[in-house]
Amino acid sequence: MRFVSFAEGAIKGLAVETPNGLRGLSENLPGYPGSLFELLGRGVQALQHAHRQLSEAPLLDASRIRYLAPIERPGKIVCVGLNYADHTKESPYEQPDYPTFFPRFSTTLIGHGEAIVRPQASEQLDYEGELAVIIGTRGRHISRENALAHVAGYSIFNEASVRDYQFKSPQWTIGKNFDATGAFGPAFVSADELPAGARGLALTTRLNGKVEQQGNTADMVFDVAQLIAVLSEAVTLEPGDVIVTGTPAGIGWARRPMLFMQPGDVCTVEIEGLGTLSNPIAAETPRA
Amino acid sequence: MRFVSFAEGAIKGLAVETPNGLRGLSENLPGYPGSLFELLGRGVQALQHAHRQLSEAPLLDASRIRYLAPIERPGKIVCVGLNYADHTKESPYEQPDYPTFFPRFSTTLIGHGEAIVRPQASEQLDYEGELAVIIGTRGRHISRENALAHVAGYSIFNEASVRDYQFKSPQWTIGKNFDATGAFGPAFVSADELPAGARGLALTTRLNGKVEQQGNTADMVFDVAQLIAVLSEAVTLEPGDVIVTGTPAGIGWARRPMLFMQPGDVCTVEIEGLGTLSNPIAAETPRA
Repeated sequence: MRFVSFAEGAIKGLAVETPNGLRGLSENLPGYPGSLFELLGRGVQALQHAHRQLSEAPLLDASRIRYLAPIERPGKIVCVGLNYADHTKESPYEQPDYPTFFPRFSTTLIGHGEAIVRPQASEQLDYEGELAVIIGTRGRHISRENALAHVAGYSIFNEASVRDYQFKSPQWTIGKNFDATGAFGPAFVSADELPAGARGLALTTRLNGKVEQQGNTADMVFDVAQLIAVLSEAVTLEPGDVIVTGTPAGIGWARRPMLFMQPGDVCTVEIEGLGTLSNPIAAETPRA
Repeated sequence: MRFVSFAEGAIKGLAVETPNGLRGLSENLPGYPGSLFELLGRGVQALQHAHRQLSEAPLLDASRIRYLAPIERPGKIVCVGLNYADHTKESPYEQPDYPTFFPRFSTTLIGHGEAIVRPQASEQLDYEGELAVIIGTRGRHISRENALAHVAGYSIFNEASVRDYQFKSPQWTIGKNFDATGAFGPAFVSADELPAGARGLALTTRLNGKVEQQGNTADMVFDVAQLIAVLSEAVTLEPGDVIVTGTPAGIGWARRPMLFMQPGDVCTVEIEGLGTLSNPIAAETPRA
């Protein structure tokens, strides 16, 4: 199952990918099954039912809709730093033996095709192509063995980071939470369409078509099941929670000279089986 | 205006503090004005209208209700570390010249009177008495001069921290996000009831009646207005967002021997004008 959250003007809706294009329903139409977040809360059968229903819905006019983040307001977005050894090597850090968790707030999220905004405050806007895990089943103290049963599906994330702000404090929070820097999508892909734990998928980040990151999800230091097990030792995971699993080598900040995204650029993150998340870069509109 | 979010069994409700006790309505009763979070989203007039309405509502039987966190699911909870110079001195850190922001997820929240849970994973459960700021008006790039106009009110937070987990990674996220370690309440107090920026309020944390932290909100390194200005340089603040402003000296982890909270203890945080937040400590129920 492949779902797309979309908007047509101010009206939101939910669609499924079909061979002919997106079929879906706006929230103001009869038969609208609810948002992806709501469906995840109701369980896998609700998701399957919605998928069957939307597969019969009208084809959407691609020119009239825009993609939203698959989940616009996750209960939590937990990101993981230093989760690919080659990336840790290009960073100022040693490879940790415990996952490096940090947050994103939902105010950072944008969908496929929307602009990643380079803030007025900084020119150090960097890409980070990542695999996103979407939780389907609530749990705490989830064992590594049971962890993947708690995953509803996967998506792609461009965890765009404002580097000088990231390092203004040892806590990376601010540099990871500028508005409109968390690109998420294009689709939610249910776990059954992918290898267990979304393992072994090629991940490629391109800036203006040029390959800047080339990794494979098999190279995560802490794999999806481990991340869920470690996190849930402390935290209850809930349907719709998102875990953003870290980026492989190739970030712009580690280059000499440093490479940052500029207004007018286009950054894409492709993950095998999940599709391609593409976002232009725009300058922040000067404040009034 | 002083609002209390409560539950009677599984039914939630909203109350106001009056000289005779709490007057309020459950969500299943006619006239229920909505949750505090919903009211904040509708603006200050909605809040005032609800206050007038609830002031005429029936007195609640204190023995039948429990307090909830004033806002159960804030869009974001941004905490501030190292924001009192005397606390920074007892920590392993230098006083930073930029605020140290880190997150709490809403799964950590509990209300007044509910148990702070000492996890199975650790014995290093520490208190942190703090002032909480609740945002009323959406904004980005808020100037320090305008910042307090974006504050709806204040409350108390016990930002209970699991120290060994806090320091498993340079990112403090996990040690600050164990389930049921973020005590919040008892009441939401509107900003007009307090000095500007809630400045100059005595803050006292007691463990089993003994004073362990004694501070004053006038001693924040970054005051409420500065925190809002700095944060909103990056992040859109929204109604119901919570900023937890840091703790003064006296945390248990800095003592020799270290002092941690034990099941059976009671920890209270009192802030002048805001009331007293009191929580027992309980051991985590062993997993099934």
